[in-house]
Amino acid sequence: MTTHRIAVIPGDGIGLEVTPAGIRCLEALAKRPGLNFDFTEFPYSCEYYAKHGQMMPDDALHQFREHDAILLGAVGFPGVPDHVSLWGLLLPIRREFQQYVNLRPVRLLRGLTSALRDRGPEDINYLVVRENNEGEYSDIGGRIYDGLPEAMAIQATVITKKGSERILDYAFRTAQSRSRKKLAYATKSNGIKHSMPFWDEQVEAIAERYPDIHVEQYHIDILAANFVTHPDWFDVVVGTNLFGDILSDLGPATAGGIGVAPSANINPDPSIPSMFEPVHGSAPDIAGQNIANPIAMIWTVVMMLEDLGEQAAADDLMGALENVTGEGRVLTRDLGGTATTTEFTDRLLAELKG
Amino acid sequence: MTTHRIAVIPGDGIGLEVTPAGIRCLEALAKRPGLNFDFTEFPYSCEYYAKHGQMMPDDALHQFREHDAILLGAVGFPGVPDHVSLWGLLLPIRREFQQYVNLRPVRLLRGLTSALRDRGPEDINYLVVRENNEGEYSDIGGRIYDGLPEAMAIQATVITKKGSERILDYAFRTAQSRSRKKLAYATKSNGIKHSMPFWDEQVEAIAERYPDIHVEQYHIDILAANFVTHPDWFDVVVGTNLFGDILSDLGPATAGGIGVAPSANINPDPSIPSMFEPVHGSAPDIAGQNIANPIAMIWTVVMMLEDLGEQAAADDLMGALENVTGEGRVLTRDLGGTATTTEFTDRLLAELKG
Ligand SMILES: CC(C)[C@H](C(=O)O)[C@@H](O)C(=O)O
Ligand SMILES: CC(C)[C@H](C(=O)O)[C@@H](O)C(=O)O
Repeated sequence: MTTHRIAVIPGDGIGLEVTPAGIRCLEALAKRPGLNFDFTEFPYSCEYYAKHGQMMPDDALHQFREHDAILLGAVGFPGVPDHVSLWGLLLPIRREFQQYVNLRPVRLLRGLTSALRDRGPEDINYLVVRENNEGEYSDIGGRIYDGLPEAMAIQATVITKKGSERILDYAFRTAQSRSRKKLAYATKSNGIKHSMPFWDEQVEAIAERYPDIHVEQYHIDILAANFVTHPDWFDVVVGTNLFGDILSDLGPATAGGIGVAPSANINPDPSIPSMFEPVHGSAPDIAGQNIANPIAMIWTVVMMLEDLGEQAAADDLMGALENVTGEGRVLTRDLGGTATTTEFTDRLLAELKG
Repeated sequence: MTTHRIAVIPGDGIGLEVTPAGIRCLEALAKRPGLNFDFTEFPYSCEYYAKHGQMMPDDALHQFREHDAILLGAVGFPGVPDHVSLWGLLLPIRREFQQYVNLRPVRLLRGLTSALRDRGPEDINYLVVRENNEGEYSDIGGRIYDGLPEAMAIQATVITKKGSERILDYAFRTAQSRSRKKLAYATKSNGIKHSMPFWDEQVEAIAERYPDIHVEQYHIDILAANFVTHPDWFDVVVGTNLFGDILSDLGPATAGGIGVAPSANINPDPSIPSMFEPVHGSAPDIAGQNIANPIAMIWTVVMMLEDLGEQAAADDLMGALENVTGEGRVLTRDLGGTATTTEFTDRLLAELKG
């Protein structure tokens, strides 16, 4: 009997509503023999910040390290500037644990309608692999002449060979595991002069090790356009931190919306916890009403189960999820239904219990 | 009788095919009394580079300065790295003439089909106002340890108060000139720590001068998603150089494709030439076949006419263009038709002559 120790951070806003949905799924699965979870909940959030002046205590990362995985709802709430809340909680976890892979599947679930004309599940099925530790999200930069007419801010993007190689290697291996053997990469080397040509060179170098993979270069502007006009062209898509971020919101917008998009922040070293979080944020506008779509969180839990080696449980949960969406009877408002967060989760659990 | 001196740079690839289409429209309009053009063609291109080792001669910018406007086809071709061709021609023109506004209308023309389900012309009608001189496209940066495992590249994004104020001011004034009085701005201040919070502050400061404009902040990831799920929310959208670039390819992807998207690189000072160019690039894959869609170029010519103060001619050309698309009989392949570049242009000119 394996017991998986899960650090749970519901966070802010709808994070507080969708996280329990995910936990309920895990608890249901844990009724089966051979699977067990030990949950520790951490209240780190903007509310915590209001009380303690920091998003999480100094030893929080140390606490998380004792766990096999971290399940996070959402971070950020009006009143606390985003760059405070996120740089005080979400981003340090990604960085400290070198969760350098941000894996974000874009797939139109059975029964859901694409925002794209005439597109169905067979057209939209790709994986965004986002570099998650460096690139455009760097600490380096600052201001000069603040408050004066000459004021300016400078921000450094840092792309390292090591950081690029490990994410690209992951992306190529992922492409190898899929039937189409295609990898598209996002760049902007026609406009951004230093970082992007360097990134391209790293891709070209790694590509030589994977002669079986068909590699395609896309500038980010035209890649974004092609997500709309030719989603069927894509299989695995890799990008730097910022470009991966944009693509992994845009992709889901074509596949049922942000309310269904899961993500995993992975450090492939099994001795270090990975973090699982829906792509959506805390959505203050709909928070507290029990109307948030829990699909993203439930699919995120599926990714966590896979990462923990619990493939059978992952398959069962994903199967139940697509049965419910395929049936199309119980859906939340963002998908045109009337179900609450709880009602959707109840229906899913009934399906899971079979 | 005004004679407008136009510098024409057909450039590369399909630039060589769509530019003549634009010129033919201008020549047709010039048959009318009171309107005249004096065209000077410049062969600066990747082919020019192959012969002369530079994209344009040292005094090219000086040559352009003698003109009232620059009409550019497209730049870039396989064999010349993009960062050579573009930093040797397109980007220096934008910079040197401080064409700090890149204006890119996104509007579904009558008769065209959106890639978005159930969306028609009434849903997609906004303007992307892109900062065009600084931001993520800066010269500053370089490499260290090149060729070694420790290699890295650093790229600076530079956002100045002056550069932000002038583009924001333009965007707010543009929003004032439209009926909805809405301005959305792209940011990523939740992830990018230095440049983006600075940009947000500039927006907030300028917004105080325009109390009649309703301002909305969007992080670039969710903004991109909303271009797909809620295009009807948008009126004027302003972004930094890179974000504006992405949004102005993504928007057109929802509105008939890149083959119809126009753009203007504007310096509002009338003594300095602005540059007009379609959003699409040189499209080497379809170049030389006379199948490129000239709509983007023709619409770009409309923007040039407006900028030159020739509103009546601009209206006539745009009217003729939408009559032809609305009729839907003669369209190029990218729009599901069979017409060649020339056939489309012939049809348009017949319509224009009435
Ligand atoms: C070719 C490239 C440098 C250019 C840009 O990014 O500015 C193009 O994409 C555009 O949008 O005009
Ligand atoms: C909230 C923000 C910092 C974050 C990011 O950009 O990484 C989010 O958009 C995401 O995609 O996880």
